[in-house]
Amino acid sequence: MTDIAFPSWPDVAPKLISVAAGRSFADMVIRQGKWVNVHTREVLPDHDIAIVAGRIAYVGPDASYCTGPDTEVIEAKGRYMIPGLCDAHMHIESGMLTPAEFARAVIPHGTTSMFTDPHEIANVLGLRGVKYMHDEALMQPVNIFTQMPSCAPSAPGLETTGYEISPEDVAEAMSWPGIVGLGEMMNFPGVANADPKMLAEIAATQRAGKTVGGHYASPDLGPNFAAYVAGGPADDHEGTCEADAIARVRQGMRSMMRLGSAWYDVETQITAVTEKGLDPRSFILCTDDCHSGTLVNDGHMNRVVRHAIACGCDPVIALQMATINTATHFGLERDIGSITPGRRADVILTSDLTELPIELVIARGQIVAESGSIKVECPHLDWPDSARGTVHLGHELSAKDFELAAPEGANAVTVNVIGVVENQAPTKALKADLPVRDGLVEGDGDTIQIALVERHRGTGGVTNAFVSGFGYQGKMAMASTVAHDSHHMIVVGTDRDQMALAANRLAEVGGGVTLFRDGQELALVELPIAGLMSDQPATEVAAKAEALGAAMQACGCSLNNAYMQHSLLALVVIPELRISDLGLVDVRTFQKIPIIESVS
Amino acid sequence: MTDIAFPSWPDVAPKLISVAAGRSFADMVIRQGKWVNVHTREVLPDHDIAIVAGRIAYVGPDASYCTGPDTEVIEAKGRYMIPGLCDAHMHIESGMLTPAEFARAVIPHGTTSMFTDPHEIANVLGLRGVKYMHDEALMQPVNIFTQMPSCAPSAPGLETTGYEISPEDVAEAMSWPGIVGLGEMMNFPGVANADPKMLAEIAATQRAGKTVGGHYASPDLGPNFAAYVAGGPADDHEGTCEADAIARVRQGMRSMMRLGSAWYDVETQITAVTEKGLDPRSFILCTDDCHSGTLVNDGHMNRVVRHAIACGCDPVIALQMATINTATHFGLERDIGSITPGRRADVILTSDLTELPIELVIARGQIVAESGSIKVECPHLDWPDSARGTVHLGHELSAKDFELAAPEGANAVTVNVIGVVENQAPTKALKADLPVRDGLVEGDGDTIQIALVERHRGTGGVTNAFVSGFGYQGKMAMASTVAHDSHHMIVVGTDRDQMALAANRLAEVGGGVTLFRDGQELALVELPIAGLMSDQPATEVAAKAEALGAAMQACGCSLNNAYMQHSLLALVVIPELRISDLGLVDVRTFQKIPIIESVS
Repeated sequence: MTDIAFPSWPDVAPKLISVAAGRSFADMVIRQGKWVNVHTREVLPDHDIAIVAGRIAYVGPDASYCTGPDTEVIEAKGRYMIPGLCDAHMHIESGMLTPAEFARAVIPHGTTSMFTDPHEIANVLGLRGVKYMHDEALMQPVNIFTQMPSCAPSAPGLETTGYEISPEDVAEAMSWPGIVGLGEMMNFPGVANADPKMLAEIAATQRAGKTVGGHYASPDLGPNFAAYVAGGPADDHEGTCEADAIARVRQGMRSMMRLGSAWYDVETQITAVTEKGLDPRSFILCTDDCHSGTLVNDGHMNRVVRHAIACGCDPVIALQMATINTATHFGLERDIGSITPGRRADVILTSDLTELPIELVIARGQIVAESGSIKVECPHLDWPDSARGTVHLGHELSAKDFELAAPEGANAVTVNVIGVVENQAPTKALKADLPVRDGLVEGDGDTIQIALVERHRGTGGVTNAFVSGFGYQGKMAMASTVAHDSHHMIVVGTDRDQMALAANRLAEVGGGVTLFRDGQELALVELPIAGLMSDQPATEVAAKAEALGAAMQACGCSLNNAYMQHSLLALVVIPELRISDLGLVDVRTFQKIPIIESVS
Repeated sequence: MTDIAFPSWPDVAPKLISVAAGRSFADMVIRQGKWVNVHTREVLPDHDIAIVAGRIAYVGPDASYCTGPDTEVIEAKGRYMIPGLCDAHMHIESGMLTPAEFARAVIPHGTTSMFTDPHEIANVLGLRGVKYMHDEALMQPVNIFTQMPSCAPSAPGLETTGYEISPEDVAEAMSWPGIVGLGEMMNFPGVANADPKMLAEIAATQRAGKTVGGHYASPDLGPNFAAYVAGGPADDHEGTCEADAIARVRQGMRSMMRLGSAWYDVETQITAVTEKGLDPRSFILCTDDCHSGTLVNDGHMNRVVRHAIACGCDPVIALQMATINTATHFGLERDIGSITPGRRADVILTSDLTELPIELVIARGQIVAESGSIKVECPHLDWPDSARGTVHLGHELSAKDFELAAPEGANAVTVNVIGVVENQAPTKALKADLPVRDGLVEGDGDTIQIALVERHRGTGGVTNAFVSGFGYQGKMAMASTVAHDSHHMIVVGTDRDQMALAANRLAEVGGGVTLFRDGQELALVELPIAGLMSDQPATEVAAKAEALGAAMQACGCSLNNAYMQHSLLALVVIPELRISDLGLVDVRTFQKIPIIESVS
């Protein structure tokens, strides 16, 4: 049993009452701090906090009456006492870390509550994978709540995932202790068209009294948006401009503004509060996706709050957006999100409300980090072999598997090419004339081969096509089992032998990212868990990811965030052209198109 | 089966989506109003609302695309469209009306959601009585949510109620469809002392994910208050000054500010928002207790909101305090409390945001009142005979039952007297020297007899004592089966024959209030249901109550709110002296004291 339940308020109410009444002593007292009160939006100097059984028993001017000989006393010395920070929507897999290692990475940044949607692993391992994530989440010394993934596959009919999520899966998950709601409902056309499967998932969540996460990734605020809102999603983090944020909040949704490793949607939306003066209660901060490098070098929710303040937001309002607003949204405001009696004792000490240095982090009444160092264990789940050995290629691949035969007698062909665009998630649908040699279509210049290698069922299937924009030179190939959202294996290379080497290498290590040049492996990030995550610390993963980036550059790729471009090439819900196990997909029309357009 | 469930959002989502998408037509469209948006705190002109299946499908600049030939179109003509008003804490019984008649009285005032605690009937009929109220509540065309009463009896050991509420009752009620939480936890010393029964009731509520109502009626904001907060109540309506309101909200409770028929706690507390600038989200408006006369003559929640605005509160913030703040508090913000898609279509049209004339009331998508007139049926429960015949005296009473024997041989005695104080709930513990005639203690001047007549079990028990302050003259008696909180029968009179007549009369009509003088009944308010409520319209009850007040005046009583003073004389939780079926109680010490102190 991996579900370690944290005692509820009623479980420990007698202890809380006893301490508050002065009949027994607190486990911990924090003395003489500035109480940042996110209910009243006040900063109140000279306050004490008394903690017992991991929850707050008392907040007031003097807790000396709760302080006994065995009480651990922490002197705040006038520093601010702020609630532990909440990340309202995020994917742990984006850090390439397991929940335990993700927690270890973010706790020193003051994140004590996370609302995570494990939809990457859902594509690889289905409900079982979600359960593993959920179980390891509940083992942590901080609060990791799980949103049940809603959309696996993300594009039914256009790709084959390892597993699919059904409305029955959603209904079952709603009874698990750590499930707070439904993960982002990405199938917004499905909702607007009243797709029965999508509505059944939403209904199961609403009937369980839980929160339906939204994802409306379109600038259209007309009837399509209205229909999506009427379908029931309660929040959205896909807004990118002020009008998006305002429209969502007016319609009774909460606007989740994100600052991830590659998302910059706070500055453009927070003006709804800072300039337009809207009631801030419906605005929430989140990260959505953070790479391990961001966690190691820049921070987590502290980075987001700091950024919101730098964008002109009042510090206490910015803190509300990362504490009480989030807690209220998920129906958890009596449990987390403020420093008040009964709540989990999640408290940060900081000496500056603008720069927000995270000096001491207390979670559930214990010191979990101090001055950037973790002070607590983050237990690992004993991940089963079936979750570790998820790269099934069917047979050892060879250069032959990556051959693309030209039509009989052709000397040259016109092919459809996925055109990578720097700093943009969408690709371009390009065409190129390519030479034919020995009956095989060959890459030319920057137009090189891309392959989608089936890796869930060991079918041996390989979809071959062409991509441009990476700038690779020499004989090389890069392969990754992180391949949103179906997470097969994407191999990009200038040479078929190198492509085979890279693919086989990932099968050998159980998944990850590798880059080969001239028969040598230049870099490897092992992601043995579901081919998505490492159970090594974030520092090690970040270092390996950095080495990978350097290797890509050494091969001639100068794109910003080149690895992300690679891993998104199978994301068949973002235009224009993507590759899937079923072929080349034009996402503008949601149609498959031929790889070879014509003989030229 | 009396539970008429209103279809949930997921029940009708396909219809809502279809209308919002423009694939089908709305049942009703409200055109061209000013949308008062309680999420953003904005007033947005030129908006339309489309409604289908009783819920809001669309709110936006133009609903003509949802408007078909059968759509009922309401022209707002630039008027404000505000959400239906919510009363966050109230007792229906205080209006002496059943839920149906209470609803009929308040719907024209724009109240479309009520959070009611039927703790009066709980004392008379126990869980069964709560269920009747709950069932009739669910039959209404507006939203009446029930808070399960927590404290019956209110003073265990000092009185005998008809029934008692147990933690098991609370746990059972939490599964009923209309129960939103626990009614006001009045036993604040019990919570602070960790009384296992009180904590079990709170725990059952919290574990059901519902809201624990508070009632901390003390100015002490020290450790007793801290201990009460640590026990779990989530709100409190007993604050009377700004410091009370601020203390509650800082501690993570919601401050419910009440304006009832006799409560005036808004003006003194709302300065926490209007002057101190606290975040208003945790402040809520309610009535607690309204007499039928107030409902008929002055209004209901519209009166409270109007008053809050007159106290200097921004009108939209005042409306938030009676709509979204309340909905959020009870975990219902996706169902009621704002004019946004998915919510129950509860909308008021008003031409002025300050005076708040209630011109049109729409509840669940149908017009329920217009220009002060009800336009809808409010169905009555078929109340069983056992709920109607609740006045059990054991035998017909005579003057003899009201005799108070003096100690053998005494010519005069000193007695303890309940001293009524005008406009105050607390009484004074007085003493008086009274004459003895024929072995019986006799009233003298304004010191007259009071009797607590047992009426639940037909024991024939009568507690006789003395009261002063009413100013009654002549031979008269007044009796009431509304006798907080145990609701036995209180008889006050200058003459034992009249007392017997009055008591027997209430037994005959099944409860209510009557006044006899010289053998004639001057006034009667029949309250046949549990001896607490009438199933006649509020106008009739108000007229009869007014006649009763006139009769009391005719008998010499010039006290303000004299009937309320009468009905509170058995409330053994408010100092100083009260009467119960067990004797005279000194509420300063929670001890019984003798009626005859000494022989003088």
